[in-house]
Amino acid sequence: MVSDRLKKQMEFILEVDKLKNIYRQSYVSDGSRHEEDADHSWHLALMALLLSEHANSDIDVLKTIGMVLIHDIVEIDAGDTYAYDSKGNTTKREREEKAADRIFNILPGDQAVYLRELWEEFEAYETMEAKFAHVLDNAQPLMLNNATNGKAWREHQIKKSQVMKRNEKVNTGSESIWEFLEGIIEDNVKKGNLIDE
Amino acid sequence: MVSDRLKKQMEFILEVDKLKNIYRQSYVSDGSRHEEDADHSWHLALMALLLSEHANSDIDVLKTIGMVLIHDIVEIDAGDTYAYDSKGNTTKREREEKAADRIFNILPGDQAVYLRELWEEFEAYETMEAKFAHVLDNAQPLMLNNATNGKAWREHQIKKSQVMKRNEKVNTGSESIWEFLEGIIEDNVKKGNLIDE
Repeated sequence: MVSDRLKKQMEFILEVDKLKNIYRQSYVSDGSRHEEDADHSWHLALMALLLSEHANSDIDVLKTIGMVLIHDIVEIDAGDTYAYDSKGNTTKREREEKAADRIFNILPGDQAVYLRELWEEFEAYETMEAKFAHVLDNAQPLMLNNATNGKAWREHQIKKSQVMKRNEKVNTGSESIWEFLEGIIEDNVKKGNLIDE
Repeated sequence: MVSDRLKKQMEFILEVDKLKNIYRQSYVSDGSRHEEDADHSWHLALMALLLSEHANSDIDVLKTIGMVLIHDIVEIDAGDTYAYDSKGNTTKREREEKAADRIFNILPGDQAVYLRELWEEFEAYETMEAKFAHVLDNAQPLMLNNATNGKAWREHQIKKSQVMKRNEKVNTGSESIWEFLEGIIEDNVKKGNLIDE
Protein backbone atom coordinates (compact mmCIF):
# COMPACT_ATOMS: atom_id res chain seq x y z
CA MET A 1 0.00 0.00 0.00
CA VAL A 2 1.35 3.39 -1.03
CA SER A 3 1.40 5.61 2.09
CA ASP A 4 -0.62 8.84 2.32
CA ARG A 5 2.67 10.61 3.00
CA LEU A 6 4.21 9.50 -0.28
CA LYS A 7 1.00 10.33 -2.16
CA LYS A 8 1.08 13.90 -0.79
CA GLN A 9 4.75 14.26 -1.67
CA MET A 10 4.11 13.07 -5.22
CA GLU A 11 1.09 15.35 -5.56
CA PHE A 12 3.31 18.31 -4.64
CA ILE A 13 6.05 17.16 -7.02
CA LEU A 14 3.55 17.04 -9.86
CA GLU A 15 1.97 20.38 -8.92
CA VAL A 16 5.29 22.23 -9.01
CA ASP A 17 5.89 20.97 -12.55
CA LYS A 18 3.94 24.15 -13.43
CA LEU A 19 7.07 26.17 -12.60
CA LYS A 20 8.28 25.14 -16.07
CA ASN A 21 5.58 27.40 -17.56
CA ILE A 22 6.54 30.57 -15.66
CA TYR A 23 8.61 32.57 -18.11
CA ARG A 24 11.07 35.25 -17.06
CA GLN A 25 12.34 38.36 -18.85
CA SER A 26 15.86 36.93 -19.23
CA TYR A 27 16.79 35.02 -22.36
CA VAL A 28 18.79 31.78 -22.38
CA SER A 29 22.41 32.35 -23.38
CA ASP A 30 21.91 31.93 -27.15
CA GLY A 31 19.00 34.39 -27.06
CA SER A 32 16.63 31.89 -28.69
CA ARG A 33 13.89 32.07 -26.05
CA HIS A 34 13.06 33.39 -22.60
CA GLU A 35 14.13 31.13 -19.78
CA GLU A 36 11.60 29.89 -17.28
CA ASP A 37 11.71 29.43 -13.54
CA ALA A 38 12.68 25.74 -13.53
CA ASP A 39 15.63 26.50 -15.83
CA HIS A 40 16.66 29.38 -13.62
CA SER A 41 16.31 27.36 -10.39
CA TRP A 42 18.41 24.50 -11.80
CA HIS A 43 21.09 26.97 -12.81
CA LEU A 44 21.21 28.57 -9.36
CA ALA A 45 21.40 25.17 -7.64
CA LEU A 46 24.40 24.19 -9.75
CA MET A 47 26.00 27.57 -9.03
CA ALA A 48 25.48 27.01 -5.29
CA LEU A 49 27.23 23.64 -5.61
CA LEU A 50 30.24 25.13 -7.40
CA LEU A 51 30.60 28.65 -6.00
CA SER A 52 30.06 28.28 -2.25
CA GLU A 53 33.77 28.97 -1.62
CA HIS A 54 33.08 32.58 -2.71
CA ALA A 55 30.56 33.29 0.05
CA ASN A 56 31.88 35.90 2.49
CA SER A 57 31.70 33.29 5.27
CA ASP A 58 31.00 29.55 5.44
CA ILE A 59 27.57 28.44 4.30
CA ASP A 60 25.50 25.27 4.56
CA VAL A 61 25.51 24.27 0.87
CA LEU A 62 22.56 21.86 1.11
CA LYS A 63 20.42 24.52 2.78
CA THR A 64 21.39 27.07 0.12
CA ILE A 65 20.57 24.64 -2.68
CA GLY A 66 17.20 23.86 -1.07
CA MET A 67 16.50 27.58 -0.93
CA VAL A 68 17.25 28.23 -4.60
CA LEU A 69 15.39 25.11 -5.74
CA ILE A 70 12.18 26.37 -4.13
CA HIS A 71 12.60 30.18 -4.10
CA ASP A 72 10.37 30.79 -7.13
CA ILE A 73 7.69 28.13 -6.54
CA VAL A 74 5.28 30.82 -5.30
CA GLU A 75 5.36 32.27 -8.83
CA ILE A 76 3.19 29.34 -10.00
CA ASP A 77 0.27 31.32 -8.57
CA ALA A 78 1.76 34.80 -8.22
CA GLY A 79 3.51 34.99 -11.61
CA ASP A 80 6.99 36.34 -12.27
CA THR A 81 7.49 39.96 -11.25
CA TYR A 82 10.26 41.57 -13.30
CA ALA A 83 13.01 42.99 -11.12
CA TYR A 84 12.51 46.41 -12.72
CA ASP A 85 8.68 46.45 -12.57
CA SER A 86 8.14 48.96 -9.75
CA LYS A 87 4.33 48.70 -9.82
CA GLY A 88 4.31 44.88 -9.78
CA ASN A 89 6.76 44.89 -6.89
CA THR A 90 4.34 46.77 -4.60
CA THR A 91 1.88 43.83 -4.60
CA LYS A 92 4.45 41.02 -4.91
CA ARG A 93 4.70 40.04 -1.24
CA GLU A 94 0.94 39.71 -0.76
CA ARG A 95 0.48 37.61 -3.92
CA GLU A 96 3.40 35.40 -3.01
CA GLU A 97 2.30 34.73 0.56
CA LYS A 98 -1.08 33.55 -0.64
CA ALA A 99 0.67 31.25 -3.13
CA ALA A 100 2.96 29.86 -0.42
CA ASP A 101 -0.07 29.08 1.76
CA ARG A 102 -1.63 27.00 -0.98
CA ILE A 103 1.31 25.29 -2.63
CA PHE A 104 3.58 24.27 0.26
CA ASN A 105 0.57 22.89 2.16
CA ILE A 106 0.10 20.17 -0.45
CA LEU A 107 3.05 18.47 1.29
CA PRO A 108 2.87 16.50 4.57
CA GLY A 109 2.84 18.98 7.49
CA ASP A 110 6.51 18.73 8.47
CA GLN A 111 7.72 19.28 4.91
CA ALA A 112 5.24 22.10 4.33
CA VAL A 113 6.78 23.88 7.31
CA TYR A 114 10.32 23.04 6.15
CA LEU A 115 9.83 24.58 2.69
CA ARG A 116 7.87 27.56 4.01
CA GLU A 117 10.66 28.34 6.46
CA LEU A 118 13.31 27.96 3.76
CA TRP A 119 11.37 30.38 1.55
CA GLU A 120 10.83 32.88 4.38
CA GLU A 121 14.55 32.71 5.20
CA PHE A 122 15.39 33.48 1.58
CA GLU A 123 12.97 36.39 1.53
CA ALA A 124 14.26 37.81 4.85
CA TYR A 125 17.78 38.14 3.36
CA GLU A 126 19.48 37.89 6.74
CA THR A 127 21.36 34.59 7.08
CA MET A 128 24.55 34.00 5.07
CA GLU A 129 22.75 31.25 3.11
CA ALA A 130 19.98 33.69 2.15
CA LYS A 131 22.51 36.38 1.22
CA PHE A 132 24.46 33.93 -0.94
CA ALA A 133 21.28 32.61 -2.58
CA HIS A 134 20.47 36.21 -3.53
CA VAL A 135 24.00 36.66 -4.94
CA LEU A 136 23.25 33.76 -7.30
CA ASP A 137 19.71 34.94 -8.06
CA ASN A 138 21.15 38.32 -9.08
CA ALA A 139 24.30 37.08 -10.82
CA GLN A 140 22.62 34.58 -13.15
CA PRO A 141 20.39 37.01 -15.10
CA LEU A 142 23.35 39.44 -15.37
CA MET A 143 25.42 36.66 -16.94
CA LEU A 144 22.58 35.85 -19.36
CA ASN A 145 22.12 39.50 -20.28
CA ASN A 146 25.85 39.77 -20.86
CA ALA A 147 25.82 36.64 -23.07
CA THR A 148 22.95 37.99 -25.20
CA ASN A 149 24.43 41.47 -25.66
CA GLY A 150 21.93 42.91 -23.19
CA LYS A 151 18.85 41.60 -25.01
CA ALA A 152 16.37 41.90 -22.12
CA TRP A 153 17.96 45.13 -20.82
CA ARG A 154 17.69 46.75 -24.24
CA GLU A 155 14.06 45.71 -24.64
CA HIS A 156 13.16 47.30 -21.32
CA GLN A 157 15.59 50.25 -21.65
CA ILE A 158 17.15 49.48 -18.28
CA LYS A 159 19.47 52.03 -16.69
CA LYS A 160 22.76 51.28 -14.99
CA SER A 161 21.38 52.97 -11.86
CA GLN A 162 18.51 50.44 -11.73
CA VAL A 163 20.94 47.52 -11.95
CA MET A 164 23.19 49.02 -9.28
CA LYS A 165 20.18 49.55 -6.99
CA ARG A 166 18.95 46.00 -7.61
CA ASN A 167 22.40 44.62 -6.75
CA GLU A 168 23.29 46.93 -3.88
CA LYS A 169 23.47 44.10 -1.31
CA VAL A 170 25.28 41.50 -3.44
CA ASN A 171 28.61 42.36 -1.81
CA THR A 172 27.20 41.36 1.59
CA GLY A 173 26.97 37.77 0.28
CA SER A 174 30.10 37.60 -1.87
CA GLU A 175 32.68 40.33 -2.44
CA SER A 176 34.46 38.33 -5.14
CA ILE A 177 31.30 37.60 -7.15
CA TRP A 178 30.24 41.22 -6.81
CA GLU A 179 33.61 42.27 -8.28
CA PHE A 180 32.95 39.91 -11.22
CA LEU A 181 29.47 41.39 -11.72
CA GLU A 182 30.72 44.98 -11.56
CA GLY A 183 32.93 44.13 -14.55
CA ILE A 184 29.90 42.84 -16.46
CA ILE A 185 27.88 45.95 -15.64
CA GLU A 186 30.67 48.30 -16.76
CA ASP A 187 31.18 46.36 -20.02
CA ASN A 188 27.48 46.60 -20.79
CA VAL A 189 27.38 50.31 -20.10
CA LYS A 190 30.25 50.71 -22.59
CA LYS A 191 28.38 48.63 -25.18
CA GLY A 192 25.24 50.71 -24.73
CA ASN A 193 23.27 47.75 -23.36
CA LEU A 194 22.60 49.66 -20.14
CA ILE A 195 21.70 53.34 -20.13
CA ASP A 196 24.12 55.52 -18.17
CA GLU A 197 22.45 58.89 -17.56
CA MET B 1 41.13 41.41 -9.70
CA VAL B 2 38.77 38.58 -10.57
CA SER B 3 40.66 35.30 -10.03
CA ASP B 4 41.30 32.82 -12.85
CA ARG B 5 39.50 30.24 -10.74
CA LEU B 6 36.29 32.27 -10.61
CA LYS B 7 36.56 33.04 -14.34
CA LYS B 8 36.78 29.32 -15.15
CA GLN B 9 33.83 28.55 -12.87
CA MET B 10 31.74 31.25 -14.53
CA GLU B 11 32.75 30.07 -18.00
CA PHE B 12 31.48 26.58 -17.10
CA ILE B 13 28.28 27.99 -15.61
CA LEU B 14 27.58 29.87 -18.83
CA GLU B 15 28.51 26.88 -21.03
CA VAL B 16 26.05 24.56 -19.29
CA ASP B 17 23.24 27.04 -19.94
CA LYS B 18 22.99 25.05 -23.21
CA LEU B 19 21.33 22.24 -21.26
CA LYS B 20 18.16 24.34 -21.51
CA ASN B 21 18.10 23.58 -25.25
CA ILE B 22 18.31 19.79 -24.96
CA TYR B 23 14.73 18.62 -25.36
CA ARG B 24 13.47 15.26 -24.11
CA GLN B 25 10.65 13.01 -25.28
CA SER B 26 8.59 13.64 -22.12
CA TYR B 27 6.05 16.43 -22.07
CA VAL B 28 5.56 18.84 -19.17
CA SER B 29 2.53 17.94 -17.08
CA ASP B 30 0.00 20.03 -19.04
CA GLY B 31 1.24 18.47 -22.30
CA SER B 32 1.93 21.90 -23.84
CA ARG B 33 5.56 21.24 -24.80
CA HIS B 34 8.44 18.81 -24.38
CA GLU B 35 10.49 19.34 -21.27
CA GLU B 36 14.21 19.94 -21.53
CA ASP B 37 17.13 18.74 -19.48
CA ALA B 38 17.40 21.75 -17.17
CA ASP B 39 13.70 21.39 -16.29
CA HIS B 40 14.16 17.69 -15.68
CA SER B 41 17.31 18.18 -13.57
CA TRP B 42 15.63 20.81 -11.40
CA HIS B 43 12.70 18.48 -10.86
CA LEU B 44 14.94 15.58 -9.80
CA ALA B 45 16.92 17.79 -7.40
CA LEU B 46 13.73 18.87 -5.67
CA MET B 47 12.59 15.25 -5.53
CA ALA B 48 15.92 14.27 -3.93
CA LEU B 49 15.38 16.97 -1.30
CA LEU B 50 11.88 15.75 -0.44
CA LEU B 51 11.96 11.98 -0.99
CA SER B 52 15.27 10.82 0.51
CA GLU B 53 13.41 9.12 3.38
CA HIS B 54 12.17 6.58 0.81
CA ALA B 55 15.64 5.35 -0.15
CA ASN B 56 16.16 1.73 0.91
CA SER B 57 19.00 2.88 3.18
CA ASP B 58 20.38 6.24 4.31
CA ILE B 59 21.78 8.47 1.59
CA ASP B 60 23.90 11.61 1.46
CA VAL B 61 21.28 14.04 0.16
CA LEU B 62 23.75 16.72 -0.99
CA LYS B 63 25.71 14.16 -3.00
CA THR B 64 22.51 12.83 -4.57
CA ILE B 65 21.37 16.34 -5.50
CA GLY B 66 24.79 17.09 -7.02
CA MET B 67 24.48 13.92 -9.08
CA VAL B 68 21.05 14.74 -10.49
CA LEU B 69 21.96 18.39 -11.15
CA ILE B 70 24.84 17.32 -13.42
CA HIS B 71 23.75 13.87 -14.68
CA ASP B 72 22.58 15.12 -18.10
CA ILE B 73 25.23 17.81 -18.77
CA VAL B 74 27.01 15.45 -21.19
CA GLU B 75 23.90 15.67 -23.39
CA ILE B 76 24.93 19.21 -24.38
CA ASP B 77 27.32 17.52 -26.82
CA ALA B 78 25.93 13.98 -26.96
CA GLY B 79 22.23 14.85 -27.29
CA ASP B 80 19.36 13.19 -25.46
CA THR B 81 19.04 9.46 -26.11
CA TYR B 82 15.45 8.31 -25.62
CA ALA B 83 15.18 5.51 -23.06
CA TYR B 84 13.47 3.30 -25.65
CA ASP B 85 15.85 4.05 -28.56
CA SER B 86 17.79 0.78 -28.71
CA LYS B 87 20.04 1.89 -31.57
CA GLY B 88 20.95 5.22 -29.95
CA ASN B 89 21.73 3.46 -26.71
CA THR B 90 24.51 1.36 -28.29
CA THR B 91 26.62 4.50 -28.97
CA LYS B 92 25.49 6.50 -25.94
CA ARG B 93 28.40 5.77 -23.63
CA GLU B 94 31.08 6.69 -26.16
CA ARG B 95 29.37 9.96 -27.12
CA GLU B 96 28.85 10.89 -23.50
CA GLU B 97 32.43 10.18 -22.39
CA LYS B 98 33.76 12.50 -25.06
CA ALA B 99 31.31 15.18 -23.92
CA ALA B 100 32.36 14.73 -20.28
CA ASP B 101 36.02 15.17 -21.27
CA ARG B 102 35.29 18.51 -22.87
CA ILE B 103 32.66 20.04 -20.66
CA PHE B 104 33.78 19.20 -17.11
CA ASN B 105 37.33 20.29 -17.96
CA ILE B 106 36.22 23.88 -18.41
CA LEU B 107 36.19 23.98 -14.58
CA PRO B 108 39.27 24.35 -12.35
CA GLY B 109 40.98 20.94 -12.04
CA ASP B 110 39.65 19.93 -8.62
CA GLN B 111 36.05 20.70 -9.60
CA ALA B 112 36.44 19.02 -13.01
CA VAL B 113 37.44 15.84 -11.16
CA TYR B 114 34.64 16.29 -8.61
CA LEU B 115 31.89 16.52 -11.26
CA ARG B 116 33.41 13.80 -13.43
CA GLU B 117 33.49 11.43 -10.45
CA LEU B 118 29.90 12.32 -9.50
CA TRP B 119 28.80 11.57 -13.07
CA GLU B 120 30.75 8.29 -13.22
CA GLU B 121 29.23 7.27 -9.89
CA PHE B 122 25.76 7.93 -11.26
CA GLU B 123 26.51 5.94 -14.40
CA ALA B 124 27.99 3.00 -12.44
CA TYR B 125 24.67 2.56 -10.56
CA GLU B 126 26.33 0.95 -7.55
CA THR B 127 26.23 3.28 -4.53
CA MET B 128 22.93 3.94 -2.76
CA GLU B 129 23.09 7.59 -3.89
CA ALA B 130 23.43 6.48 -7.52
CA LYS B 131 20.61 3.95 -7.14
CA PHE B 132 18.34 6.57 -5.62
CA ALA B 133 19.25 9.15 -8.28
CA HIS B 134 18.18 6.57 -10.88
CA VAL B 135 14.91 5.99 -9.00
CA LEU B 136 14.17 9.70 -9.45
CA ASP B 137 15.40 9.78 -13.05
CA ASN B 138 13.01 6.93 -13.85
CA ALA B 139 10.08 8.04 -11.70
CA GLN B 140 9.83 11.61 -13.03
CA PRO B 141 9.08 10.79 -16.70
CA LEU B 142 6.59 8.13 -15.58
CA MET B 143 4.77 10.77 -13.54
CA LEU B 144 4.74 13.14 -16.53
CA ASN B 145 3.51 10.42 -18.85
CA ASN B 146 0.79 9.61 -16.35
CA ALA B 147 -0.21 13.28 -16.08
CA THR B 148 -0.47 13.65 -19.88
CA ASN B 149 -2.48 10.45 -20.42
CA GLY B 150 0.58 8.70 -21.81
CA LYS B 151 1.28 11.32 -24.50
CA ALA B 152 4.93 10.38 -25.18
CA TRP B 153 4.28 6.64 -24.72
CA ARG B 154 1.42 6.73 -27.23
CA GLU B 155 3.49 8.63 -29.77
CA HIS B 156 6.24 6.02 -29.59
CA GLN B 157 3.90 3.03 -29.12
CA ILE B 158 5.74 1.92 -26.00
CA LYS B 159 5.04 -1.50 -24.54
CA LYS B 160 4.55 -2.32 -20.88
CA SER B 161 7.43 -4.81 -21.18
CA GLN B 162 9.80 -2.01 -22.28
CA VAL B 163 8.85 0.11 -19.26
CA MET B 164 9.24 -2.85 -16.91
CA LYS B 165 12.68 -3.62 -18.37
CA ARG B 166 13.74 0.05 -18.11
CA ASN B 167 12.65 0.11 -14.46
CA GLU B 168 13.84 -3.33 -13.39
CA LYS B 169 16.36 -1.98 -10.86
CA VAL B 170 14.22 0.81 -9.36
CA ASN B 171 13.31 -1.38 -6.38
CA THR B 172 17.01 -1.62 -5.43
CA GLY B 173 16.92 2.13 -4.73
CA SER B 174 13.45 2.48 -3.23
CA GLU B 175 10.87 -0.23 -2.66
CA SER B 176 8.17 2.27 -1.70
CA ILE B 177 8.65 4.46 -4.78
CA TRP B 178 8.73 1.36 -6.98
CA GLU B 179 5.36 0.33 -5.51
CA PHE B 180 4.02 3.80 -6.39
CA LEU B 181 5.34 3.48 -9.95
CA GLU B 182 3.93 -0.01 -10.42
CA GLY B 183 0.50 1.50 -9.76
CA ILE B 184 1.10 4.12 -12.45
CA ILE B 185 2.23 1.50 -14.96
CA GLU B 186 -0.81 -0.71 -14.30
CA ASP B 187 -3.20 2.26 -14.63
CA ASN B 188 -1.66 3.21 -17.96
CA VAL B 189 -1.90 -0.32 -19.28
CA LYS B 190 -5.64 -0.25 -18.40
CA LYS B 191 -6.05 3.10 -20.18
CA GLY B 192 -4.31 1.76 -23.28
CA ASN B 193 -1.42 4.22 -22.90
CA LEU B 194 1.04 1.33 -22.73
CA ILE B 195 0.75 -1.69 -24.98
CA ASP B 196 0.35 -4.98 -23.11
CA GLU B 197 1.06 -7.85 -25.51
